[in-house]
This record gives sequence, structure tokens and C-alpha cells, in this order.
Amino acid sequence: MTTINRLDSRDPGFASALSSLLAFEASQDESIDRAAADILAAVRHRGDDALLEYTRRFDRVEVASAQALEIPRDSWQAALQSLPAAQRQGLEAAAQRVRSYHERQRAQTWTYTEADGTMLGQKVTPLDRVGLYVPGGKAAYPSSVLMNAIPAKVAGVAELIMVTPTPDGLRNPMVLAAAAIAGVDRAFAIGGAQAIGALAYGTATIPAVDKIVGPGNAYVAAAKRRVFGTVGIDMIAGPSEILVICDGRTPADWIAMDLFSQAEHDELAQAILLCPDAAYLDEVAASIDRQLPGMPRADILRESLGKRGALIQVRSLEEACDIANDIAPEHLEISTDDPEKWVERIRHAGAIFMGRYASESLGDYCAGPNHVLPTSRTARFSSPLGVYDFQKRSSLIQVSRQGAQTLGRIAADLALGEGLQAHAASAQYRLDKA
Amino acid sequence: MTTINRLDSRDPGFASALSSLLAFEASQDESIDRAAADILAAVRHRGDDALLEYTRRFDRVEVASAQALEIPRDSWQAALQSLPAAQRQGLEAAAQRVRSYHERQRAQTWTYTEADGTMLGQKVTPLDRVGLYVPGGKAAYPSSVLMNAIPAKVAGVAELIMVTPTPDGLRNPMVLAAAAIAGVDRAFAIGGAQAIGALAYGTATIPAVDKIVGPGNAYVAAAKRRVFGTVGIDMIAGPSEILVICDGRTPADWIAMDLFSQAEHDELAQAILLCPDAAYLDEVAASIDRQLPGMPRADILRESLGKRGALIQVRSLEEACDIANDIAPEHLEISTDDPEKWVERIRHAGAIFMGRYASESLGDYCAGPNHVLPTSRTARFSSPLGVYDFQKRSSLIQVSRQGAQTLGRIAADLALGEGLQAHAASAQYRLDKA
Repeated sequence: MTTINRLDSRDPGFASALSSLLAFEASQDESIDRAAADILAAVRHRGDDALLEYTRRFDRVEVASAQALEIPRDSWQAALQSLPAAQRQGLEAAAQRVRSYHERQRAQTWTYTEADGTMLGQKVTPLDRVGLYVPGGKAAYPSSVLMNAIPAKVAGVAELIMVTPTPDGLRNPMVLAAAAIAGVDRAFAIGGAQAIGALAYGTATIPAVDKIVGPGNAYVAAAKRRVFGTVGIDMIAGPSEILVICDGRTPADWIAMDLFSQAEHDELAQAILLCPDAAYLDEVAASIDRQLPGMPRADILRESLGKRGALIQVRSLEEACDIANDIAPEHLEISTDDPEKWVERIRHAGAIFMGRYASESLGDYCAGPNHVLPTSRTARFSSPLGVYDFQKRSSLIQVSRQGAQTLGRIAADLALGEGLQAHAASAQYRLDKA
Repeated sequence: MTTINRLDSRDPGFASALSSLLAFEASQDESIDRAAADILAAVRHRGDDALLEYTRRFDRVEVASAQALEIPRDSWQAALQSLPAAQRQGLEAAAQRVRSYHERQRAQTWTYTEADGTMLGQKVTPLDRVGLYVPGGKAAYPSSVLMNAIPAKVAGVAELIMVTPTPDGLRNPMVLAAAAIAGVDRAFAIGGAQAIGALAYGTATIPAVDKIVGPGNAYVAAAKRRVFGTVGIDMIAGPSEILVICDGRTPADWIAMDLFSQAEHDELAQAILLCPDAAYLDEVAASIDRQLPGMPRADILRESLGKRGALIQVRSLEEACDIANDIAPEHLEISTDDPEKWVERIRHAGAIFMGRYASESLGDYCAGPNHVLPTSRTARFSSPLGVYDFQKRSSLIQVSRQGAQTLGRIAADLALGEGLQAHAASAQYRLDKA
């Protein structure tokens, strides 16, 4: 059996083999984009009427008025009470840890005053109102509600509005329970591009928000791209990825299962192991083949590992770090002794799991850091979802009369150089007359 | 004469009058978008050849090879030496102040260790390589080179690559001088969508970057939107705006000129004054009418103030702050005594200029904070350009064996609740066997 691809960094064709393994381009389907645009326009112009129409058509939910789409808070509490104790306690413990980590991300206003009395600074404020999209059906993950909602509330967002489709009227109790724990303020049973339109433009029932976060299907992603600018959006996520760097001394079954934990998400998910030890890679390959048939999602695993997974023999752990920087993975496990040493060399990764005990799944649920992470090499320029995504900054510039004498002369010279006479004159008015 | 509109917040039609004054929608021209897409595809697939072709066609610059498009560093230094002393010193003083402000924005890596030895944290790293687009021709502002380049270099970006079109081969010495001062690493005489494509995908001559910043025309903006995801981009800026809140005791000529300094940018720029004192608004209106004919850009001023400008009488300064929060202006001047008192009430603004001496033009050039600011109400959810746009974060998760016992149980419970068995098994492998 050869469930997963094998590569060797010494092979002459390695660079191109790796690059075709990594190649992934989100197909931007024109027809989906067009449909999303039509739905957005309808919701923008016809508000609740359009929202009710699409909800009827796509979710088969018929209600008398848009107000009936609001999911009342007491039903969230009821959902929370109804959970098995282990899950309720798990969600609460996870929420507590996520909150405690994210509290350290909160930025503070700062100012400083110069010798001539001029004061400069940066004022930090939360967004007023945020929309959180939660997919319906199988992809409805309560952990995702926690990871998106908690940073917003830690940032101080006054009103956090959750939307989630409820096909055939089925409301997911785990999602509602997570909303209750995470501090969501209101929830509506709407989804798709119509929910994005309602949040972006507002309707009589759904308040317009300042930013929309959370994962969704292709229609939701297309709608988010289109409303960007009217509201802020988070990243459009690609398939999930894990890269494991191992020295060959973590139990092979553990690493095989770590690869599975990524690959089980979907057929496009990517799981790659880098190790200098060929015998260890054989061991992991054997473990994969042995464990796979027993997994509930064996079919997904087989396709994901076969098409996009790889065990790669590298020359050294140093080379493994270089490859990791090229890949800029969403999740990076450094399964070695003294992982700090290797972390030093890593420049690009969404989350770095250090040591043999830090499996990615711990980070997905409850370690504390966010599980919404940059995919598809975007860790080269972007960051995990965080409190900073729900705060923004305003520059503060208070110029003293004395300061205006210095700054005004510089500004006037530069403005005249740029041909902007009103800029120059505005500065010059503040100069003391000789 | 009535150069500028007058509104009164007490009028029954005020809200809708204000809203139509503010209405601005960036027209997304399909033909521009299509042309940009074609240029990007050509540069992606034919590299330098396509780049040379478009540069010949659009900039009328004919060179033997793409290497000849690089603007050598010694010519930047020559440009710097050739500047009039006042402008050179002005640029250097401005750069120094901008650098000193932005150094306070630098984020640091942090970690913390829990009682059971689990370590969590956030590692901060700069982007490797950034592209800076600088428009050619009339809109080539050296101040903009400083404002975009300095935060990137303060963040620690290793390689900052400037591109700027040089129509008919004309290279702007102020822009090159600013590049030398700001610490740009390399510069190429290319522009338009073809320059964006070269930076996003790389060619044999132009290295691929991780993020592209800087303003540009509609083709550049369309190309940036399209390469977003392959690289990071900054915001797509709309027309520039100023909102002035005044108590009626700043010299009317100063405030009129502050409004001009925004309106002179272009016909779509927006300048609005809020004041509770009708007599003062009359005074400013008279000053506008008196000063306007003498301004070099009188035609632009007349159109901008007539179409998009307004003097608005408000009930109180408190109401002025509420209106400011609705408008979420790019620039906000609070021209009063004790501006701190009013800043407290402001939640949404790109930059806040406090007191009668802080004219916006000082911030545009040399106060220190960035002049690249969120426009078109996006200050509700976004921030000035800053060092934070050139740094990114990686979560750090090091779990001790003891920590894995607690976290593993929580993660397994939640993973099973979500139907992700491999996630659960991966956590459970780290549990000590009883």
C-alpha cells in the first residue's frame, strides 16, 4: 500500500514535485460570483422581503416575518443546559483558555509629548458591531463560534451578531450553546449570500455591522469579497494544512494521527511530514496504512493523503525549517527535543506547535490561541485571527503653538514641492507673524 | 456667491441631505477590471517579455532588457543631492519624525508559561519582501514614499522594492530622493497593472514580493484587488476627506484654508465643517469666497466644495462628535480649546488633529503619524497604515506532558462532539496510559 506520497529533498526533481503538490488555486467560479452579486443587490434594495424569499428558497424555512428569524436568547441557554456535561464543561474550559490568551492581545492607547508641547499618539477603539457567520449543517463547529466570537468580545465590540442558516428549521444546539458561552449578543437563522448582504447593508430587522467574520461556502465567500469596503471582512480561508517537522523520535502512530487530524477535514486538506530519517518515514507510512482503515473518515483521508499529502525525507532539520518557511504553513508542528531552537529559524507559519505533546488538535480546541489561521502561504503576510482584528487605531496629533512653528515650515516647503498650495498656506497660517 | 453647501442639523431633511452628500461609491468599471486581468495573466505567463511590451506601450519607454528598467541606486543619491536645500532638509526632517513615531508601533514577541509547564505566546516577524507602488506623473508625491516605506523598514522588512512608472522615461527626482531617504532597497521604472503583476508573481528580473502597498490609478487598484491572496495588499483608497469640528473661535481664514487643503486634492475630495455658531459659518463662507479666486487650484476647489463640501450648523459640539462618529472621517480636526474632552467621544476617525494649531497639512507631511488613512467610512473598521501592516504573528503552543493530560481530555471531548475522530485520537495519544 502506498497511501501517501514520498519525496526526497535530494532528488533533482524535488523542488518542482513539492511545488506541484502545494499548488492550489481557489477556483473563482463566475456563476457563483454572479449569483452572489444578484442576491446582495436584492437584499440591499428589498431588505427583509428578499431575505425572507431566499431563506424560504434555500433553507426551506417559512416564517411570517423577518423578526421570527431571530433566535431568542433563552433558546441558547436551553441548548447549553441540554448538552452532555462533558461537552458543556469542555466548551466552558476552552472558552476560558481562549479568553485568557486573547486578553494579552488587547492593544492600548498611547501618547507621548515632545519638548515643545506637541503631543502624538495612537487611540485604540473597538469596532461597534460585528457579524459572525457560522455555517449550517455538517460544517457547524461550536469551536469555531468560540474562536471567532471571543476575540471580538475581548476587544470590546459592543454588539456581536451571529447568523447561521438552519436548513429545514434545524437549529444546532452545540452552536447555540457556544454562542451563549462566547458572549454573542444576538443570533439570526439566516445564511448564504443573503445573510452577508443583510449584515453589510442592514435591513429593517438585521442591523448593519462594521465587519463580518467566519467561514462559509463558496457563495458566502463570494459575497464577502463583494461587500469588502462597505464592511471589513476576515480572510477567505483555503483548505487547511499541517506541516510536521520531526526528528524521528516521536511515536510514529502519534505523527500519523496528527497528519490524519488535518487530512480528515476534507479532500483538499494538506498534511506533510519532514524528517531526516528514512526509516522513521517508513514507520509513519506503515502506521498510516495500518490505522487508516479503522478511521470513520477513511475515504476522505485516503483521497487527501494520496493527492496532497507527503512524507518528505530532508537532509537535516535545518533544511526542514527552510522548507517550512517556503511553505508558510497554516499549522506547523515541531516534534523534536528543544523545539525553541528550531522556532528561532521559522519566519512564516500561522501557529507553531512545539514539542512532542503539542498536537495540533489541542490548539484547534482549547490551548488558547486562535484556530482561525492564514492558509495557502498567506502566513507570509498575515496573522491568526485576533483581538487586533476587532480593534482599530486613530492617530492623535496635538500641535502646540511652538510646535507649529517648526512643523509648519517643513510642511510648507514640502507642500510647495508637491504643488499643493493650500496645504502650504494652511500650515503657514499657524506661523507667528514676524 | 455660494461656493459651498450649507446644512443645519435641525432641519427635518438633514439626515438625508447629509447622507446624499456623503454618498460615494467607487465605480468598479468592468472594462478596466478585464484589462487589468489580461495584463496580469500576460505578466504571469510571459514575465519580462510582457513587462517590456506594456512598458513600451503605456509609458513609451523602450529598453533592451528588463534589467535596464532598474533605477540604479547612485541615481537616487544624485537626485537627493540635486534637491534644493530646503526640500532636502524638509524630507529628512519629516523622515526622522515619521520614523520616530512609527518605532513606537513595533510589536514584540511575547510568551507566558502556565503552572503545568505549558507555554503559550505570539511570535512577531516582519514580512520578507514588500513592493511599494508610487504613481508617476502629477500624483507622484515624495511624502507618500516616506509614509509607505518607513513603516515597512521600521518593521524590519528585509527588502523593499519600489516601482514607479516613468512615462517617456522621465524619472521624478523628488521620488528618487525620498526613496533614498526612506531606505528603499531597489527601484524599477515600471507601473500600471503590469508592475503589480510583476511584484505579485515575480519575473526573471523583478522579485516576487509578499505584500504590495501604495496608491495607484484604477488599473492599479483593479490589479491589486485581483492579486490579493497571492500577496497581501493595503487598502484601496477612496477620495480624501476632512471633517472639521470648530467652536467658532479659530480664525475663519485658517479653517477655510484647512478645508481647501483637502478639497485641492481632486474634485471628489470632501471637506466638511461642523460648528454650532451660525455667524462663524457665515464668516468661513465669506473667507472661502474671498480666498478661493487666488488659489492655483481654484477650479478643483470650486467643484469639490460645491459638490461634496458643506458647512453644517450643529446644535452643540456634542452633536458634532456624534455626526463625526457616523461619518468616520479620514481626517478629523477638533479646532477647539481642550480638544482632549472631545476626543474622548470620538470612536471612528483615521487621524484626529487636536487644537487650533494642528492643521491637517502638518500631519500630511511631518508630524510623525502616517498620512495613509482609511477613507469612505472605513475608519469604522480599519486603521492608518502602520508598522503592524508589515509585521505578522505566529501563535506559539508548547504543551508539557502534564498540560497534555488536561488539554487532551477537553480537546477529545469537543472533537468527538464535532465528529472529528482523528482530532480526538491525536489528543488521546498524548494521554498517559492509566
